[in-house]
Amino acid sequence: MTNVLPTGATIGILGGGQLGRMLSVAASRLGFKTCIFEPNGDCPASHVANYHFKASYDDEAALKSFAAAVDVVTYEFENVPTSALDLIESIVPIRPNRRTLAVSQDRMSEKAFLSELGLMVAPYGAVEDAESLAAAIAQVGTPAILKTRRFGYDGKGQSRLMSPNDATQALADMAGADAVLEGFVDFSHEISVIAARGQAGDISCYDPGENVHLNGILHTTTVPARLTPAQRTDAVLIAAKILNALDYVGVMGVELFVTKEGLIVNEIAPRVHNSGHWTQNGCTIDQFEQHIRAVVGWPLGDGTRHSNVEMLNLIGDDVDRIADFAKGGSAGIHLYGKADVKAGRKMGHINTITGAA
Amino acid sequence: MTNVLPTGATIGILGGGQLGRMLSVAASRLGFKTCIFEPNGDCPASHVANYHFKASYDDEAALKSFAAAVDVVTYEFENVPTSALDLIESIVPIRPNRRTLAVSQDRMSEKAFLSELGLMVAPYGAVEDAESLAAAIAQVGTPAILKTRRFGYDGKGQSRLMSPNDATQALADMAGADAVLEGFVDFSHEISVIAARGQAGDISCYDPGENVHLNGILHTTTVPARLTPAQRTDAVLIAAKILNALDYVGVMGVELFVTKEGLIVNEIAPRVHNSGHWTQNGCTIDQFEQHIRAVVGWPLGDGTRHSNVEMLNLIGDDVDRIADFAKGGSAGIHLYGKADVKAGRKMGHINTITGAA
Repeated sequence: MTNVLPTGATIGILGGGQLGRMLSVAASRLGFKTCIFEPNGDCPASHVANYHFKASYDDEAALKSFAAAVDVVTYEFENVPTSALDLIESIVPIRPNRRTLAVSQDRMSEKAFLSELGLMVAPYGAVEDAESLAAAIAQVGTPAILKTRRFGYDGKGQSRLMSPNDATQALADMAGADAVLEGFVDFSHEISVIAARGQAGDISCYDPGENVHLNGILHTTTVPARLTPAQRTDAVLIAAKILNALDYVGVMGVELFVTKEGLIVNEIAPRVHNSGHWTQNGCTIDQFEQHIRAVVGWPLGDGTRHSNVEMLNLIGDDVDRIADFAKGGSAGIHLYGKADVKAGRKMGHINTITGAA
Repeated sequence: MTNVLPTGATIGILGGGQLGRMLSVAASRLGFKTCIFEPNGDCPASHVANYHFKASYDDEAALKSFAAAVDVVTYEFENVPTSALDLIESIVPIRPNRRTLAVSQDRMSEKAFLSELGLMVAPYGAVEDAESLAAAIAQVGTPAILKTRRFGYDGKGQSRLMSPNDATQALADMAGADAVLEGFVDFSHEISVIAARGQAGDISCYDPGENVHLNGILHTTTVPARLTPAQRTDAVLIAAKILNALDYVGVMGVELFVTKEGLIVNEIAPRVHNSGHWTQNGCTIDQFEQHIRAVVGWPLGDGTRHSNVEMLNLIGDDVDRIADFAKGGSAGIHLYGKADVKAGRKMGHINTITGAA
């Protein structure tokens, strides 16, 4: 059953970074107001949202006021504290749903969920201490990557083991946090599917993009990705299986490794995704509008792609190159309005059109 | 000489309607902040701008605070009171420039300016009273349209004369305002050129769109317009001549009648224009971003069009059809967030992609 919000309704967004900023803009295009909940002032989303609750996630009064001020809540990151979600959900619906958050907040839960669906994932093992790490190495082999189970992003909370000798250092890097050891996958390239599911159960996927990472951070996404027609079909079927199993509502980023044995799920992100930014200049309805459409109960856009795109992330002082990109005169420029340039910080992205679709 | 604003600078916008709203969104995309000056609360632009000065145009203290808070000022409508502009310009630059506003605020000045440039305009005569109206009718003929010299838009402040017998009623319709009588032009269709000029004098024009009006309000713009290659060239040359003569900086809408004798200038609008809304879904860099680029001193976008578009205005309760448009799944939907639906009020627009360019 769909629950359609009337135009003019207010969408609450947890998190005020660039994803919240671009979600706010998309919501405004469809006539909705937005209200950001974000502890930091002068955050990217606050520049374009109607309202900004500047409060911490343990401020119950602020959370209650926020929930009462909006008609639905969505989020731009998956690590919202459970207590905050409980309080919000007692007042207003949260989309995508809580189960998805529970699954994706913990790398072990996520891998177990995907495996139970019959999807391929990298070999993995739970790690709490030296003993379980040794067991995981025996099972998974090296090279491998040790990752914290929670709160990791953009390569943070990760440590590489080239051989069992690196175990002690890797465990120390986790600083006592529960972790998961992931075996290396022999993949030719990584792709991602930006998939959406509406409240009526309708599913729409954008064409997969091909991702290149640099220093653990997404560097470029190129559309179309190098895929056979069969791989393309598989990618969509995998994404649809995940969304349906979670009774998902909204946009999800599904990262897949392309291997000789088939597509292996790397990870899922229950939100709009950096590897879907190309849709802003490649499609009439971009991933941000698609997410808003799902959250407010509209029918999904059909995902039609009119152009081939290469998306380039501007990390840290890459943003100094903006004058050069502007001179070109044909690239889609997207800056996040962050006041301070820091190494490793996502400052913006460039969508270069490489031809008609 | 160009005066490039650094990213993060604040752009002041006079007027908080839908044009200010879409300018604000474009500015945010390039990393700029926006500050709206608009007497009405809950106006469309206030939903997406960083700041909103809710004050009247004769509130000197508010105008001064506004001007001091921003790095440059632009506007979404041409009828800003002169006293407000004088005060603002004593503090911060206004782009497009004052001369353009002076010319375009008064239909007589505009027609004199265009005629002096050697461009064709409809036959016209100044009207202050019954005597000058009679003289204008003798010169221009009927049918003709009597229009107030100032503050007219969307067919407001206009009265049609089918014969000299309508003179008394038409003059009464002006309610004492100075007016201009315009002779009818025998045109096949109306087009508009959305033209931009940067601070370095660079000019970029979007492909002309073909306009259809309904009840004096723009109904549809279709791109490409029906034009011969020679007419296309003429349209661009006419627009460039106007922009250069005014040392213009920003986007201008130039409405042209297509006639057997050539292109006749209907009117110019020194701002982003309703007939350029198709660029949001037809081009990588739309008219709103193009205007912001000019105002902040960036190089212009090249105006490349990737798709053919039909733009449909949603007037009054047309907006009730949104559910139908949403169902289609491929149209670009743009709503302005206006709380009250009123007859004749622009509530939003739909950009339907009709094919690759």
